Amino acid sequence: MTTAALSPSPLADLDTAALREAHSSFARAYDELKAAGLSLDITRGKPSADQLDLSNDLLHLPDGAYRDAAGTDLRNYGGPNGLTELREIFSGALRVPVAQLLALGNASLTVMHDTIAQALIHGVPGGDLPWANQSISFLAPVPGYDRHFTILERFGIRMIPVPMNDDGPDIEAVASLLAADDSIKGMWCVPVYSNPTGAVYSEKVVRALVSLDAAPDFRLFWDNAYAVHHLTDDRPEPIDVLTLAAEAGNPDRPLIFASTSKVTFPGSGVAFFGASPANIAWFQHNSAAQSIGPDKLNQLRHALFLKDADGLTAHMEKHRAILEPKFAAVDEVFRERLSPWGAGSWNAPKGGYFVSLDVADGSAKRAVQLAKEAGIAVTPAGSTFPYGEDPRDANIRIAPTFPSLDELTAALGGLCTAILLAEAETLLADRD
Amino acid sequence: MTTAALSPSPLADLDTAALREAHSSFARAYDELKAAGLSLDITRGKPSADQLDLSNDLLHLPDGAYRDAAGTDLRNYGGPNGLTELREIFSGALRVPVAQLLALGNASLTVMHDTIAQALIHGVPGGDLPWANQSISFLAPVPGYDRHFTILERFGIRMIPVPMNDDGPDIEAVASLLAADDSIKGMWCVPVYSNPTGAVYSEKVVRALVSLDAAPDFRLFWDNAYAVHHLTDDRPEPIDVLTLAAEAGNPDRPLIFASTSKVTFPGSGVAFFGASPANIAWFQHNSAAQSIGPDKLNQLRHALFLKDADGLTAHMEKHRAILEPKFAAVDEVFRERLSPWGAGSWNAPKGGYFVSLDVADGSAKRAVQLAKEAGIAVTPAGSTFPYGEDPRDANIRIAPTFPSLDELTAALGGLCTAILLAEAETLLADRD
Repeated sequence: MTTAALSPSPLADLDTAALREAHSSFARAYDELKAAGLSLDITRGKPSADQLDLSNDLLHLPDGAYRDAAGTDLRNYGGPNGLTELREIFSGALRVPVAQLLALGNASLTVMHDTIAQALIHGVPGGDLPWANQSISFLAPVPGYDRHFTILERFGIRMIPVPMNDDGPDIEAVASLLAADDSIKGMWCVPVYSNPTGAVYSEKVVRALVSLDAAPDFRLFWDNAYAVHHLTDDRPEPIDVLTLAAEAGNPDRPLIFASTSKVTFPGSGVAFFGASPANIAWFQHNSAAQSIGPDKLNQLRHALFLKDADGLTAHMEKHRAILEPKFAAVDEVFRERLSPWGAGSWNAPKGGYFVSLDVADGSAKRAVQLAKEAGIAVTPAGSTFPYGEDPRDANIRIAPTFPSLDELTAALGGLCTAILLAEAETLLADRD
Repeated sequence: MTTAALSPSPLADLDTAALREAHSSFARAYDELKAAGLSLDITRGKPSADQLDLSNDLLHLPDGAYRDAAGTDLRNYGGPNGLTELREIFSGALRVPVAQLLALGNASLTVMHDTIAQALIHGVPGGDLPWANQSISFLAPVPGYDRHFTILERFGIRMIPVPMNDDGPDIEAVASLLAADDSIKGMWCVPVYSNPTGAVYSEKVVRALVSLDAAPDFRLFWDNAYAVHHLTDDRPEPIDVLTLAAEAGNPDRPLIFASTSKVTFPGSGVAFFGASPANIAWFQHNSAAQSIGPDKLNQLRHALFLKDADGLTAHMEKHRAILEPKFAAVDEVFRERLSPWGAGSWNAPKGGYFVSLDVADGSAKRAVQLAKEAGIAVTPAGSTFPYGEDPRDANIRIAPTFPSLDELTAALGGLCTAILLAEAETLLADRD
């Protein structure tokens, strides 16, 4: 590594001459990187082929079987609530009673999208009007998940950013926004191993979210995407948000979404929807016009494969064995390459699919652009913010799961080269 | 049969004394029917277990395979257009070029529902405004499909009934309604073996539907649910509605829906959406916010099972072998039991899933009620009309596919007993 010749110190502390020297060294390293002609991709939170192989038994299941425990023929129409046996497997991890947990189609994104579409067209229990008949907005903890933001952007729903802390969204900010603005009808929440910061909502934060004064048709869009996706033995106790909300007198506030997308096969999994009885009845009424029932054979396939809650836990351990070294590599490469220059700050998540990296303000877009030009595709800077606009231009989402460990390490090394050059450029420009 | 003692003649021609005698005889037959304590169900157009067995190979497919012809790993996210190989199998039967035919989730009902939801929220190409921002209406050929009507009713879209003829909807009625009312934005069409009359739209009717003056954002919701569901060798040549529409200068008018629900497994099939390039781009843009791709493994499962267009045809012949005797039984029982009394008129469809039966005006609800009380569940009278209101109270939809031939014959016999009693009651009441 050509930068090794310099004795590294935090870039911001260097005098301008030393900064120029560092910049030249980073630029040379970057030229070498480009010359290497890499083609690597760490853009999306996709499981790797190794992880998908863990579920290959699904490819011949249900192996002739087609009845549920009650004897119903699952090949035919019907069964809008989904297969009871599968709902039982996920009920504990999601802390939703089986009767209030529906097993649906192949994507929780679809369920979230459709829930908002129904709220726009029909309104939700407790609300006077369809959301489309009002000028409404959502709270969006940032950094957050770009697909959440895209749904709202397409529907023309205004997003109000809220800062994320290590224990969840900043509750003081949430409280003051909700108190001041009755148009706020929803809030995105990824309560466990939040995308991308890895934050786990504390019980205190959850209690506040279900208790704060808000519009009667305000909903928490509780995307529990990573409930069982642990990377360490230090695991958060699942929080029963439905019970906490009921205790707070707001039983209809949480709408819970989850899926097996990152448990089995992302394209061919099963999505779940959990909520209060009133919300479930609302959802069932709406979806009765939309569907005669989900793919129950795929649900049977999953129930036969996972077997029970213990089977799910054991299966997720196999994912962890594949993922843990990749997340360790992120931390290692960043420590080795960025820390000596005082560049970057990042988290070491205990689960989920992402690492959130903050670089020097004003450097993220440039760093991602430099990486791209060197053949390393990274999630576009800004994508973790509504409308793709990171006001500090600092956040980069790292998705380490899909590439092999070697490819990942190469991609991260290249990204670090790009980041150091971008930070040095930014600092020099500030001194002009 | 106790009615055999009477010499039957058309009920309407009987003098009042003879009508009373017939009524008494029908009432005795009905009492015997009730005493038999039947429990039979001919309410819904569901395939029978025998038909489902035809596709049991799906229950162990794709048998370890998980790549498409291009080598893509189908287990992961992506591929929003669906599996090319499966789209190729259905392209000919549906007369939609592969590039304009998307393979999606497990239900065309969902695609139809979601398309209307998107049109409400966003509008469609060629329209100035989202449909939700206007007071809009749909043309609904009657008798028609209750689930079509339910979608519109839930969305508060006004339905305007249009009479059905043997060659499709009454074009003069359609033309004068469209000319008089710019609020008409859609029309339900089941062009082949229409639900429930079995009508097949003629090319002349289709040419008219794509040519008539209408609002620029008027759409034909072309639910080609029974394109390959033949019951005889006399098969309609598939009509290329997209080309006819383009020739007429209205390329964006048809939106084509289809599925394998009644080809393989109703709960676990694959839905298709076909349309002009502009509509496909509109659909793709909308669904990009809703889904990261359909269940491509289920599509692979179907492609491996059906193999090619010939395989599809051969598979549908097996369905025909099971269904033909059931439809013959409907015709036979009605001829034997209803014709002698001049009761009922019905069609003998050449495909599809239903027989449409008209009884004497004012008798349908009563007949269905009597059947129900005798343990025979029939689709509620009126359900083939918007809002469940058949102005003549005459139409009953017969769904002969699900029960065994014996159960079907028993159910139909009982229904005839109920119909004769209901018709005699109605006629007697008219003479009071």
